[in-house]
Amino acid sequence: MANAPVQRMSQLMAKTLRDDPADAEVLSHKLLVRAGYVRRTAAGIWSWLPLGKKVLSNVERIVREEMDAIGGQEVLLPALLPREPYDATGRWDEYGQELFRLKDRKGGDYLLGPTHEEIFTLLVKDQASSYKDLPVILYQIQHKYRDEARPRAGILRGREFLMKDSYSFDTEDEGLAQSYALHRQAYQRIFERLGLDYRICAATAGAMGGSKSEEFLAPAGAGEDTFADCPNCDFAANTEAISYELKPVDASGVPAAEDIPTPDTPTIETLAASLGVQASATLKNLLVKVDGEIVAVGVPGDREVDMGKVEAHFAPAVVEMVTEADFVARPDLVRGYVGPQGLGEKAGYIADPRVAPGTAWITGANKADTHAKNVVAGRDFEVDEYVDVVVVQEGDPCPKCGTGLKLDRAIEIGHIFQLGRKYADALKLDVLGQNGKPVRVTMGSYGVGVSRAVAALAEQTADDKGLCWPKEVAPADVHVVAAGKALQTELALDVSEKLAAAGLRVLCDDRAGVSPGVKFTDSELMGVPQILVAGRRAAEGVVELKDRRTGEREELTVEEAVARLTA
Amino acid sequence: MANAPVQRMSQLMAKTLRDDPADAEVLSHKLLVRAGYVRRTAAGIWSWLPLGKKVLSNVERIVREEMDAIGGQEVLLPALLPREPYDATGRWDEYGQELFRLKDRKGGDYLLGPTHEEIFTLLVKDQASSYKDLPVILYQIQHKYRDEARPRAGILRGREFLMKDSYSFDTEDEGLAQSYALHRQAYQRIFERLGLDYRICAATAGAMGGSKSEEFLAPAGAGEDTFADCPNCDFAANTEAISYELKPVDASGVPAAEDIPTPDTPTIETLAASLGVQASATLKNLLVKVDGEIVAVGVPGDREVDMGKVEAHFAPAVVEMVTEADFVARPDLVRGYVGPQGLGEKAGYIADPRVAPGTAWITGANKADTHAKNVVAGRDFEVDEYVDVVVVQEGDPCPKCGTGLKLDRAIEIGHIFQLGRKYADALKLDVLGQNGKPVRVTMGSYGVGVSRAVAALAEQTADDKGLCWPKEVAPADVHVVAAGKALQTELALDVSEKLAAAGLRVLCDDRAGVSPGVKFTDSELMGVPQILVAGRRAAEGVVELKDRRTGEREELTVEEAVARLTA
Repeated sequence: MANAPVQRMSQLMAKTLRDDPADAEVLSHKLLVRAGYVRRTAAGIWSWLPLGKKVLSNVERIVREEMDAIGGQEVLLPALLPREPYDATGRWDEYGQELFRLKDRKGGDYLLGPTHEEIFTLLVKDQASSYKDLPVILYQIQHKYRDEARPRAGILRGREFLMKDSYSFDTEDEGLAQSYALHRQAYQRIFERLGLDYRICAATAGAMGGSKSEEFLAPAGAGEDTFADCPNCDFAANTEAISYELKPVDASGVPAAEDIPTPDTPTIETLAASLGVQASATLKNLLVKVDGEIVAVGVPGDREVDMGKVEAHFAPAVVEMVTEADFVARPDLVRGYVGPQGLGEKAGYIADPRVAPGTAWITGANKADTHAKNVVAGRDFEVDEYVDVVVVQEGDPCPKCGTGLKLDRAIEIGHIFQLGRKYADALKLDVLGQNGKPVRVTMGSYGVGVSRAVAALAEQTADDKGLCWPKEVAPADVHVVAAGKALQTELALDVSEKLAAAGLRVLCDDRAGVSPGVKFTDSELMGVPQILVAGRRAAEGVVELKDRRTGEREELTVEEAVARLTA
Repeated sequence: MANAPVQRMSQLMAKTLRDDPADAEVLSHKLLVRAGYVRRTAAGIWSWLPLGKKVLSNVERIVREEMDAIGGQEVLLPALLPREPYDATGRWDEYGQELFRLKDRKGGDYLLGPTHEEIFTLLVKDQASSYKDLPVILYQIQHKYRDEARPRAGILRGREFLMKDSYSFDTEDEGLAQSYALHRQAYQRIFERLGLDYRICAATAGAMGGSKSEEFLAPAGAGEDTFADCPNCDFAANTEAISYELKPVDASGVPAAEDIPTPDTPTIETLAASLGVQASATLKNLLVKVDGEIVAVGVPGDREVDMGKVEAHFAPAVVEMVTEADFVARPDLVRGYVGPQGLGEKAGYIADPRVAPGTAWITGANKADTHAKNVVAGRDFEVDEYVDVVVVQEGDPCPKCGTGLKLDRAIEIGHIFQLGRKYADALKLDVLGQNGKPVRVTMGSYGVGVSRAVAALAEQTADDKGLCWPKEVAPADVHVVAAGKALQTELALDVSEKLAAAGLRVLCDDRAGVSPGVKFTDSELMGVPQILVAGRRAAEGVVELKDRRTGEREELTVEEAVARLTA
């Protein structure tokens, strides 16, 4: 292919802004808008301007190359999808409000694909008939749609976004493990080539279903995920995915449970203060409705319930908080004084593993103004199911080694799942096995947020001057600045042509009527790795080469500069 | 970039079929499905399998290179769009049922973009403030959505399809003409590189609005467009766009109009037979309702009315045929005997230019069982407006030189429009002019059907054996066939590796348990330009090289074959 022509800024659709957009909360949102890379078209829906599109395409190319390298076959499936396959797996309903649904002119139900497990499953059902046709890895790079309740953070969390999704199909569990391992390696290479700092964390499967899953998280303040890192061992996990072993304790020395009058103690704080105990000695019971049925959730009084975990546990059932009306309808539930003893008939009870069998608690006595002490799990009340529902805190013990965990915010840039046979079961995907009998296929599903990776890169690499792209994803190799009058512009264009002829991608700021100061500021904001300035010494054929990241600068002749940059 | 690995057919997701799909009507649909390039996901919604995706990407690359060459800047706008800009231009309603509309979780109205004039106009309004920021050409390659009433013909006319759309922005009419000319040239280069046979035809602007427009039509029996070609001059036009000059004639010698009894002549045929005249001597008046108001459409009795042209003329008003109920409600309209004389108060009247002032006709007398003769246009009745509404026929005179036209079916593969200021007016797109005053911007809009071009290419290049791709778009350069046992497979893989190492894109049919005959048939069906067979003489290191198009074959040593193919 021919060398790319010099991109002149005088003709480039990339207006830079001095001020942050009013609605921008996170760094990448501010900088990508200010540097003229993206513009908002509607809530959570973005347009990529020329420089943004170049970065996006660079990320896309890297992802494609690494997917091809593990034998992935690129396909392109529709974004507009019929309802039926999503009904068959239950996801038409399970996705709830996050799914964009629409009707065609004949009244048929369609959706905008949030992920494509169903359609890939049906494709392989059509294409593969024998175990000899497997294993196979199929991938696509395509827009996905999710109607986020609160689209925020610019392109970090849009409602239309570009994703690489791939799917593996195997007949044996070992094959799935191998396809999963191949993806894990490919993702490591992708994120390394992109220049992203990332961690591989244990994750929950969420709406996707399946068993094993890991997330690739890029630490960044703007991230919506919180992950825990053990300073002592190799444990790292999304806090949503941390689970603790249940450790029963011996309660033989605990006296019988006993009611204690506790007037005016409607909260854990007032209760603990009144009794002179730590909040952690009390048992808090949060009431929720699961598809309309009351369930109590028990956690130590000093911990918060992570409603996301409760919802994930009961999904696809809908979880709601109880209301005033519920207490009116159920006088047997004494507000502020609910305890798990004897709750059996009245409501379900789930509890955090910290409420292990044998642990003793101060908790509500199911009577007004009364609590009970020495209430022992497994003796005085039963737990229907133990579920990790508390919000993980900094310093909580590492589930692997016990050391206090460190918490950080991060952006989810990739996610790999061993789905198993969930989708193959729902859509009856079998192939003929070696013995001539049908074998149910086992699947994996794997995603890279392509547009999100651009934002994550912006977050991690930006400095106080602006964007600062790694070489392989930058929209250009060199940003040539004409800092002066006609002489400088002529030299800038001349050296730009020389660099382009040598195969470099060149952006040249040839704008007339724009001061050198503004051009310098823009060049730093836009973040091309090398900046070449034709300025004061242009008449001598001397230019200044500046490294965007380090700020190091050096005066060179044009020949030296070209030689240096094309080396 | 590294050379692409050899694509082994034993691992490729591309199942060929012996039989045409039951629902396939056109050649490209049949062949692209049979050769394993595409699969149907829903009506008018297609999945691209690995080989199809490669062809699609090749077309995309050529389009991109040629758009870059005319200074186009690639951007990527959303497919999911807010309603408001389309309300401002009226297209939210005008698009009718063809627009996919949907609501988000908050009840906001959205659409799936059919074309993006509105969003590009707003983008440039945000980005450009001065005449110095223009001209600019922006383009994207993106999925578009149209809810076709009868999606048919495979990917020739889908409801989700890949398109390159571009938009030019200029301050002066001459600038628009220049941007238009650049696109015209770029499209010529694109279609030439693709190897498509095409014509540039005058076209109507349709729902897009604007003035000048031309279509790039690829002659093919499966096409939905009909175009007229003059065998004598350079005239070529979509038949929808042909218009004739109005040529008044001298009617001074025509006697006064006179009623004639014509019982039992409800049709033109019975009337002409009963009077012993040609149908062309009679004037047929078709009644339609335009937004509920009756309008008569006058054409010579031997010609058909093209309802599409009538609809286009009155758009966005809705045109319907009159019904039984309308005649009951309007006894003043005598069914079968309507004539334009005195229609003035009762209904509007449009007529074909063939009903020019001074022409004399036999037509209805607005009384039962009665016609009138010597009814002269402009003397006995007035035409509200002359509109080209007849169906163009083979042999109709060329509007330019009068020679009888030749008609052909074709596929619209590109369309270029001079939109003018329609969208800029609706969305108030101004920039500061040289004199410091605001100038309204003038626009062009230009489209290439990327996925449709793949189907058009399949249509034009296929032969009775199957697909037959031009080199630059083919999914591989060479299709190596292992025709035999282990020895042949080993040789095929070995030569494949050598070819891939030399930079060629290689597909190798290494399938075990598939007969040479089936492999030969598949290789012809799949249409890679060069086929290399490791067969009978494999032990001697001799292979057969076959040209897919000509069928010419030659026995060569492996070294000779590699040298030939990599030359």
